[in-house]
This record gives sequence, structure tokens and C-alpha cells, in this order.
Amino acid sequence: MTYCVGILVREGLVMIADTRTNAGLDNIATYRKLHVFEKPGDRVISLATAGNLAVTQAVISILQEGIRSEEDGKVETIWTQPSMFRAAQFVGRAIREVFRIDGPALEQSAASFDVTMLLGGQVAGGRLRLFMVYRAGNFIEATEDTPYLQIGEHKYGKPILDRAIKFDTILEDALKIGLISMDSTMRSNLGVGMPIDLITVRRNAVAHDLLHRVEPGEPYFHDLRERWSAALRQAHQNIPRPPYVG
Amino acid sequence: MTYCVGILVREGLVMIADTRTNAGLDNIATYRKLHVFEKPGDRVISLATAGNLAVTQAVISILQEGIRSEEDGKVETIWTQPSMFRAAQFVGRAIREVFRIDGPALEQSAASFDVTMLLGGQVAGGRLRLFMVYRAGNFIEATEDTPYLQIGEHKYGKPILDRAIKFDTILEDALKIGLISMDSTMRSNLGVGMPIDLITVRRNAVAHDLLHRVEPGEPYFHDLRERWSAALRQAHQNIPRPPYVG
Repeated sequence: MTYCVGILVREGLVMIADTRTNAGLDNIATYRKLHVFEKPGDRVISLATAGNLAVTQAVISILQEGIRSEEDGKVETIWTQPSMFRAAQFVGRAIREVFRIDGPALEQSAASFDVTMLLGGQVAGGRLRLFMVYRAGNFIEATEDTPYLQIGEHKYGKPILDRAIKFDTILEDALKIGLISMDSTMRSNLGVGMPIDLITVRRNAVAHDLLHRVEPGEPYFHDLRERWSAALRQAHQNIPRPPYVG
Repeated sequence: MTYCVGILVREGLVMIADTRTNAGLDNIATYRKLHVFEKPGDRVISLATAGNLAVTQAVISILQEGIRSEEDGKVETIWTQPSMFRAAQFVGRAIREVFRIDGPALEQSAASFDVTMLLGGQVAGGRLRLFMVYRAGNFIEATEDTPYLQIGEHKYGKPILDRAIKFDTILEDALKIGLISMDSTMRSNLGVGMPIDLITVRRNAVAHDLLHRVEPGEPYFHDLRERWSAALRQAHQNIPRPPYVG
């Protein structure tokens, strides 16, 4: 499993991803799922991936090595995309290219062609945007009404996002709430695990603000987990008992 | 969808079920999913059902009308079972009987034979117990280590159970925490909805303690929802912001 969340607020973008991959319970490993393509001042593009690791790694390779354009025969890469919208289309094309090569054989061997990605960032001259790209290569975008997107094991970590994230939430709080959402997911699904990679990008900076890996045992994250657990326990204690009588 | 939770603590048993059924988004109806078979002093057995409504209704009918015993030819019903363990086996047999009749045709028409049940209660002379019965008719039992079982849309409502329910939790608190778990699920999945049916049974009473339907707009449940939402928002505000710097 995997859990990645992207949050786009007025001040900027947060993306957080776990690193656990597993092929069954007895083959657990750590792989980076948060990838950053950055030339400060020109573009900062972050991609979080969920699904079959062979597929997501192949997509990352294609994004960098490029695809020959059908229009003018030139090789396009993630570095040549003129906007975030075009970058999202390009990620979709890369997924379709991997599907063309590997999809039929994968599905014949009862492995699924299973991939979803979050793509966030800004290209100079354009807006800071956040997309979710599906396995068919199509995509949706985060909006002011729903300023976050999730991929992977998304249910455990959704209630806190639903209740606490607004477009006007400040960037540090969005990061904190994203980490709580990740903690709730790790607590309930062993397929999601440490370390955690995160990036923040301030709107119109066209460069990352923070690029950090939360390692197991890090004091701040440990404290966040403890406080959140204690707060949940406390929260229900402050609610009166049911008045129902038999 | 459906959400039902059963909690077995030292003091007794709580079972809670929503009532929404849907065949697609445009065919929504209310059906009771929490069924009670009770003769005070002899037995109190509560059954919560998830899955295909035709299947669960057929199972309920069989539990009452009975199956002819393979051993002695007598008709057995839920009322003749001498223990909760035998009652759980009997529910499993009823599910297999419905599968024998309807399963192949259901699966040919691309509808799934999909059913899970929670069975809780006490038969005089035996212990108060709580089981989850699977579609294959086999079952597991709640224990002191994991004193709750869920069926249906279980992920949204699991974090609060994980953190707050212990075997020593008192019965009223178990009910309250169960209602919070139901609220979290309804907040995130429109397929789970009001009214909510609930039963509590005190250990060795061999009769229900509380049998109640929470209707939309009920003041206590409304207050619980508001307080829980406010507490979650407050909880993250009391956690310090991340100290990470770029």
C-alpha cells in the first residue's frame, strides 16, 4: 500500500508521501514515492506515486528520458513542458506509454496495471496547481472547494482533512494536518510506513520551500503522534454520555 | 453501503447499525439492519447485517422459519440454539443455504453474493459473546485484546475504536464511542445514513438493556456530532507547528 496527500492552499502547496512498498507481507522495502523536478525560477514539479512499483518507476524514467512528440518529432521531457497543465497531460501520456508496453502482459499474469499519481507545482509564468492523474492518463485538479487530493490508502486519513483543511489554512498548518492524516493512516494500515517524505512550495516562489524526510523516531513527529492520540482520547471524554434509558 | 459495529466490554455488549440501503445513487431506502431475537431470561441475540439485501433478508427468514436438522430431522431455528456458538454456526448454515439457492444465479447476473453479519448476545447458561460471520458461513469472535468487530464501510470509523475502546471501557462509554465511530463514517460515506439502530445488553442479564433508534435531528446525537467535529478541529490546533526549515 501507499498513502500520499497533496494540499493546495492560498499560500502554497504541501505534498507528503510514505515510502513503504510491499509484495506480500514478507517482502517489505523502502522506496521514495515523492519525486521532485526542480530548476529554481523555471519550475518546481513534485510527483507522488501509488501503485505497481515497476509501473511507477517506468513512468518516472520516461518523464526524464522523454517521448518523441507526435507533432514535430522533438523529444519532450518533464523539463520542457511549458505549463503545469501540459505537465499533467505529459504524465498521462507516460502512463499510457507504459501501459502500451507492459499493460497486456501484466494483466495476463493476474497482476494489475495499477497506478495513480499526484502532480503539484508551478512552472514560471503559470499558476501553482495540483492534479491527480489516473491510470487511464486522465486527471482532475484540486480546487478552492476541495483543496486536497489523496492517493492510495485514503480513508483513514480523510476525516481530519475534511474537517480541518480550508483554502485559507496557512501553509504550516496544512503541513501539520497532512502529517496527522499520514499518522492516522499508518496507525491503521501496516502497508503504509516511515520514513515520510514531504515538500512545501510557496505560491509564486517557483522553488521548494521545504524538502524534508521524517525518519522513524524524529522527536517532532513522535510528539505529534502522541498529542494526536491523547487529543482523540480526550475528545470523546468531553462528550456527555448518551441519555437513552431502557 | 452499510456500517455496523459491535463492541464487547466487561460490562456488556453494544451493537449499532445504520439503515441506509442503496441500489445505485438513485434508489435509496431505509431498512432495519439490526435484528433482535429475545426471550428475556432465555436468550437475547442481536444480528447486524451488511451486504446484498435480498440475501440478508432471506437469511433472517431462515433463522426464524428454520432448517431441518441433518442429525435428527427436527426443525432448528434461532430460538432452539443452545448456545451463542451454536447460534453462530446456525447463522453460517443459513447463509450457506441461501447461497445454495441463490448464489449461482446471482453470480451469473454479475451481482455478488455478498454478506457479512455481526452476531452478539447471550443464551441462558452461556457467556455473552460477539461474532462476525463471513459469507462462507465461517466466523471469528471478539476477544479482550480486540473487543470490537465491524462490518461494511469500516475504515473511517476505525481510528476512534482503536484508540478509545478497551475491554474495561464502561458500557455507556462504549456506546458513545460507537456512535462517534458511526458519525465519522456517515460524514465520509453517503451510503451510510440515519436513522441509527442500537442495542445494549448487560452481561448475564439475558435481556436487552437499551433498544433505541436515533432519528435524524435527535438532540443528543446532533450535539455529539458538533462536539466531535469541534474537538477534532481543536485537537490539531493544540499541536505545535512543524519545526522544519528549508
